[in-house]
Amino acid sequence: MSPEPVPLRAPVRRADRARQVADVLRQQIHANAFERALPSEQELAAEFAVSRNTVRDALALLKDEGLIERAPKIGTHVAQRKYDHGLDALLGLKETLRGHGEVRNEVRAARRVLPPPAVARRLCLEPGEQAVYVERLRYLGDLPLSLDLTYLVPDIGDEVITRDLESNDVFALIEQISGGPLGSADLALEAITADAHSAMTLQMPEGGALLLLERLTRLEDGRPVDLEYIRMRGDRITMRGSLIRPPERAEGPDAGTDWRLT
Amino acid sequence: MSPEPVPLRAPVRRADRARQVADVLRQQIHANAFERALPSEQELAAEFAVSRNTVRDALALLKDEGLIERAPKIGTHVAQRKYDHGLDALLGLKETLRGHGEVRNEVRAARRVLPPPAVARRLCLEPGEQAVYVERLRYLGDLPLSLDLTYLVPDIGDEVITRDLESNDVFALIEQISGGPLGSADLALEAITADAHSAMTLQMPEGGALLLLERLTRLEDGRPVDLEYIRMRGDRITMRGSLIRPPERAEGPDAGTDWRLT
Repeated sequence: MSPEPVPLRAPVRRADRARQVADVLRQQIHANAFERALPSEQELAAEFAVSRNTVRDALALLKDEGLIERAPKIGTHVAQRKYDHGLDALLGLKETLRGHGEVRNEVRAARRVLPPPAVARRLCLEPGEQAVYVERLRYLGDLPLSLDLTYLVPDIGDEVITRDLESNDVFALIEQISGGPLGSADLALEAITADAHSAMTLQMPEGGALLLLERLTRLEDGRPVDLEYIRMRGDRITMRGSLIRPPERAEGPDAGTDWRLT
Repeated sequence: MSPEPVPLRAPVRRADRARQVADVLRQQIHANAFERALPSEQELAAEFAVSRNTVRDALALLKDEGLIERAPKIGTHVAQRKYDHGLDALLGLKETLRGHGEVRNEVRAARRVLPPPAVARRLCLEPGEQAVYVERLRYLGDLPLSLDLTYLVPDIGDEVITRDLESNDVFALIEQISGGPLGSADLALEAITADAHSAMTLQMPEGGALLLLERLTRLEDGRPVDLEYIRMRGDRITMRGSLIRPPERAEGPDAGTDWRLT
């Protein structure tokens, strides 16, 4: 005999219930489950087997994230779609968003610099050797999506900054210039809150959440050529990917070697 | 002849320079480049070729993220290490943090529920069919790292909640119970700000950044069994992985098929 089912509303506190509801609704919004209007509070309360107050709390969480808009008589609407950026493959933003609209870049800097020593080491530059620094604010249409700080090795970077940076991914330019495909990239992804100046630049609320991506990209021969610090608006970008379970991870001397622990 | 090098301080505004410095320092901290104390403001100003005011602004950004602590006479110290969680392979938190300390789970809920219809669909359950809901607050030692909301298919979930959930990953229990390895998972990773109640639960500042991971995990035969909504403290967890450039992504009818755009 199976245990007695307990509706989600049972012994948990309202804030816990609101979180449960918000998490499911968030992914439904991302999956375009709602045309533009969300169901009414009554309908959602019935669907999730919770009180209307809990539904209101859940919707307040999503409103605070900038995902929905609410107004009396008008109801609850999706404020903006989020765009998917992949974790499965190494692609530039323009390649990624192909089909969603025009990606254009406001070039805030493009010049030779003396890079910080830590950057020089990541790019395998000699101490004192110059790099090329590019800073771009990236838009999809009129929507700022990300602020990208890029350090390039000088032999490739010098040529990159002579090209059309407004409408091209740096990845595409590197491949044109180097004459071969990119190889791989190491990435670190963090969540941080937007400081006042970054928020202003990205036209988002101060204190909103950012996805911060550090990415070191190599040519096919393994040479690092491109170190980037990318701030993506948390309310506009979702990173998506698939993972597989590594074989025999628990036994043997190589257990866990495909797994990063530093 | 190469162009004249321009130090980073050149024509950009101070907030832009502070961001550049903070981004490099952040990754140096993660890479344990500093024992515990950071170099002095003077040393950092020289290293980054910026003013001491810019260094101060950069350190203020990292302090706001909870990454460093600053005090007069004592200087600047690393407040806490972040832990790496991998994007390359499908592992539970305990497996991931093996070697860093004991992962223990405070079980906040473990019971049968009537899942929301959207959850039932993801888990391929019949309408009205029950699921098993598990909610855990996960610690590394005394440090809350993540709050995990988990929906399991009932045949596996009924057995999972009879096991020791305090000290085991759900992944490991599913594999014991199903008698085979997990197969793959689809994941969506977002940055959101912590609402008051989630922040309190995770013992972090309200409005701090969270990494929100939605993960649908399948057995080797492709059957979805485990849908999770995981809130990870942004100041404690970095997601890391490697990407390779997909071959022939620009040509042919299959271009971009390994890339998710919904």
